[in-house]
Amino acid sequence: MTPRIDALQYANWSERIFRQMRAGGVDAVHVTIAYHENFRETVLNIESWNRWFERFPELIVQGFAAEDIDLARQTGRTAIFLGAQNPSCIEDDIGLVEVLHRLGLRFMQLTYNNQSLLASGCYEAEDTGLTRMGREVVAEMNRVGMVIDMSHSGERSTLDAIAHSTRPIAITHANPAGWHPALRNKSDRVLHALAESGGMLGFSAYPHHLRGGSDCTLAEFCEMVARTADLMGVSRIGIGTDLCQDQPDSVVDWMRSGRWTKARDYGEGGADNPGFPPMPEWFRDNRDFGRIETGLREVGFSVEDVAAIMGGNWARYFAQSFGNLNHGRREAAQ
Amino acid sequence: MTPRIDALQYANWSERIFRQMRAGGVDAVHVTIAYHENFRETVLNIESWNRWFERFPELIVQGFAAEDIDLARQTGRTAIFLGAQNPSCIEDDIGLVEVLHRLGLRFMQLTYNNQSLLASGCYEAEDTGLTRMGREVVAEMNRVGMVIDMSHSGERSTLDAIAHSTRPIAITHANPAGWHPALRNKSDRVLHALAESGGMLGFSAYPHHLRGGSDCTLAEFCEMVARTADLMGVSRIGIGTDLCQDQPDSVVDWMRSGRWTKARDYGEGGADNPGFPPMPEWFRDNRDFGRIETGLREVGFSVEDVAAIMGGNWARYFAQSFGNLNHGRREAAQ
Repeated sequence: MTPRIDALQYANWSERIFRQMRAGGVDAVHVTIAYHENFRETVLNIESWNRWFERFPELIVQGFAAEDIDLARQTGRTAIFLGAQNPSCIEDDIGLVEVLHRLGLRFMQLTYNNQSLLASGCYEAEDTGLTRMGREVVAEMNRVGMVIDMSHSGERSTLDAIAHSTRPIAITHANPAGWHPALRNKSDRVLHALAESGGMLGFSAYPHHLRGGSDCTLAEFCEMVARTADLMGVSRIGIGTDLCQDQPDSVVDWMRSGRWTKARDYGEGGADNPGFPPMPEWFRDNRDFGRIETGLREVGFSVEDVAAIMGGNWARYFAQSFGNLNHGRREAAQ
Repeated sequence: MTPRIDALQYANWSERIFRQMRAGGVDAVHVTIAYHENFRETVLNIESWNRWFERFPELIVQGFAAEDIDLARQTGRTAIFLGAQNPSCIEDDIGLVEVLHRLGLRFMQLTYNNQSLLASGCYEAEDTGLTRMGREVVAEMNRVGMVIDMSHSGERSTLDAIAHSTRPIAITHANPAGWHPALRNKSDRVLHALAESGGMLGFSAYPHHLRGGSDCTLAEFCEMVARTADLMGVSRIGIGTDLCQDQPDSVVDWMRSGRWTKARDYGEGGADNPGFPPMPEWFRDNRDFGRIETGLREVGFSVEDVAAIMGGNWARYFAQSFGNLNHGRREAAQ
């Protein structure tokens, strides 16, 4: 059977949520562990995850290589792959890419809305593309096996990353801008380039990325998936719900404003709706993946295509992207 | 064939030294990566090692598990196992034990001469034994598979660690105080307790630990080994040269004085000989392990015993101590 994989969640983690992952048959999740955190703060968040892994070894297991998805399935657990939504975790030090990869970081966004040391975010007025350090870090991420995620990046930076990276990159959580023209959603040009390079798009169920917001219906969402499959090919798409379950609104403030402004940035929201928007009724938590699966069947996808979209494509992409723990060690002298 | 292992070196690393390791047939070395460094500084030193591993994959490979000694032998390389001589690298945060273990730290001294957060050093007037945090950290090191090294610790703290640890501890680089009564050398009481618990002693070739200092002869050194084998049993001893090759004297100042004093501490030296002492003529660098092997044969050890002392005992101890990278992951749900 094909695994069920979610390529982006950032929940207020708890035993309850881990049990919902099991109830929903979710075999692997890419979880965000840092936004604006510096290296030491990111390590503190890794320490928190180490405690979850120690406390709930019957529910979750840390994923380091794609094979760990199989391990998770065989042992009835969910494999948790760590990622960062901003490169603040590597500070100004390229050596931290390998260090964080060793600790399990398998995804890193080059930007989170704003200009970073590496590239431009989707909310900047000017997008300068990859910086000098950005090109170096992309090469280093390629070397160690860390996915370049451009979900929150500007158009030019994203096209630059697709062109410069020797491994296919990912947009783990966004939807086509042609369907819903949010700054965070992606143009057909980006989606074409992403698909042609072998990259992956994960469809977001976060209301600000949905036409109609929280009121978007499952049928509308699945129709959007079908149109994107026509555009990119069914092998280039998956799910990346952006589920921010049980988070207090103080967390969305941290995500948007970090320490870069003394004011309050509303990001995709606004002064009238500053908090987390309510999720659509058809996707409340990890137990609802079956509903998306049913919805995809109902808009005409075959059983095989649904399996690919619900996890098979991500599983293949993870295997291509992460290498394995012994990468370069056993082969070096042979 | 039995591997050749050195349980402590802290050289000014270079391609030349790595080539000398190969020329000397050294299959594994425990290298010190930090003395008084805090966590972030220790990570910088790990980054430096990552660069060595990337630059010289035909000479060295990072050791994570005892099996990596076999990998190194099969591929004609030296396995490098990382260690810290002080717990400053974990700061006041027990979660950093697992983090540093994941990054490859396989040894940590609970103290370096002075009182630490964990235990008392051999130069303190009062030895309080393991502290509250010390007992917690010993248990955590036991859990993840990091060796408790008491080479620079006080007597009571060392006996406490032996008693409290559920895995045999090590004294990677010291000699019997009964042979040469330096503060850094160990009493028969400690050596007895260490041997009975299944722990290991690594014999140091550092002049301050040798009777006669730099003038100590190979025969005298090997006689000392033979007397210690009588005391501890031949299965409890190995080599831990404390080779500090090519280091400038500024480094021994850092080792001794760190940031804990504004004055200059002379450690085992003195105002009249503040720098690194010259190594004995029979052990200049990694190419001289064959001379120790010959010397041990000449004081009457059998071929088998020499092989055990030169590496076989450490290989067994590493296998007992480190666990493997998948420790706890594959077994948890079974």
